[in-house]
Amino acid sequence: MSLPNLQIACDHSDLPTALADITKVGDVVDIIEAGTILMLQVGEYAVKCFRALYPDKKIVADTKCADAGGTVAKNCSEAGANWMTCICSATIPTMIAAAKEIEEIQVELYGDWTYENAQQWLDAGITQAIYHQSRDALFAGETWGEKDLKRVKKLIDMGMKVSVTGGLSVETLKLFEGIDVHTFITGRGITAASDPKKAALDFKAEIKRIWG
Amino acid sequence: MSLPNLQIACDHSDLPTALADITKVGDVVDIIEAGTILMLQVGEYAVKCFRALYPDKKIVADTKCADAGGTVAKNCSEAGANWMTCICSATIPTMIAAAKEIEEIQVELYGDWTYENAQQWLDAGITQAIYHQSRDALFAGETWGEKDLKRVKKLIDMGMKVSVTGGLSVETLKLFEGIDVHTFITGRGITAASDPKKAALDFKAEIKRIWG
Repeated sequence: MSLPNLQIACDHSDLPTALADITKVGDVVDIIEAGTILMLQVGEYAVKCFRALYPDKKIVADTKCADAGGTVAKNCSEAGANWMTCICSATIPTMIAAAKEIEEIQVELYGDWTYENAQQWLDAGITQAIYHQSRDALFAGETWGEKDLKRVKKLIDMGMKVSVTGGLSVETLKLFEGIDVHTFITGRGITAASDPKKAALDFKAEIKRIWG
Repeated sequence: MSLPNLQIACDHSDLPTALADITKVGDVVDIIEAGTILMLQVGEYAVKCFRALYPDKKIVADTKCADAGGTVAKNCSEAGANWMTCICSATIPTMIAAAKEIEEIQVELYGDWTYENAQQWLDAGITQAIYHQSRDALFAGETWGEKDLKRVKKLIDMGMKVSVTGGLSVETLKLFEGIDVHTFITGRGITAASDPKKAALDFKAEIKRIWG
């Protein structure tokens, strides 16, 4: 079992606060994500600024692309992104078109996706998925449970590299013990902490303690 | 049966060419859409510029929002959008959160949505849907067929206002004769024409001929 990555999601509504937050922890985390909210507000500048600040980090454009995969992926790649997300309800041709234009595609799992879908993604060469506890679902009182963990395990058993996100804290990481999680993604779990750098280091230390 | 609207989709990768195209036809069309590609490239500026140029038109932010509906909708509304799209795989809490912050939500239909989903959207007060022939599916050789028209009719019968989009031309409008389509959405069907204003007027005339 390899050490899961730590990814910071920048879901700010403006670039200045995103930059202020990311520069506190950019050196600590493994992957930096330009969140959907941020990209819809400031466009490719989010990716371009992150790339300029962190030339050697993996950068994800969380476009949740549903269509025109080729164009969106080309734009993201040119802006400096390594990976880009597609929504699970995108068609296979959309995902394939996107995959041709950028290093890797990650499928964002929302709503009623099936393992049959997952097999189609794998067959199309898409090997990354993001298991997402919806922020709004979390607000509505739902949380990580055995059902979620079973789904994550099943996807990993099928051969997918699975990132998990949604309401994660240092304390919740141990829920995933024994599961070969690819990446833990958190936003405010780090940025909203009183000491974001310490929070990022705490995440890394707990990941190392459990999976190291 | 009321007269369907004509909506122009601006799916450009940069703002200058979007503005050059939109100003040719903005006065003719009923609804102006800041496309997903454009918003991911230039952010809220797309909506802000369209609102500044066309203070009295309906403006749609095609965010295909999958999560954080409240934040995305608030941002779009503040930028000047009337309507915003959510992807069909977004959770109901996401759609409800979005609907609280903007005039109307439109559900973008991709992948394996069901009529049971549609009923849930209606029950949540979401009454607009966009039936979308995927651009990549069109590239892969798929086109409008009887199956699509039946689905559009069924959604309308359920009580949804349905916009249709994907590979539409003046010639294909008559396929929808007898169907109470809410809005026809086209991008390059107008912008790629040798005379975009004439193309927009031709669309309007054909809509009036069939539904007037």
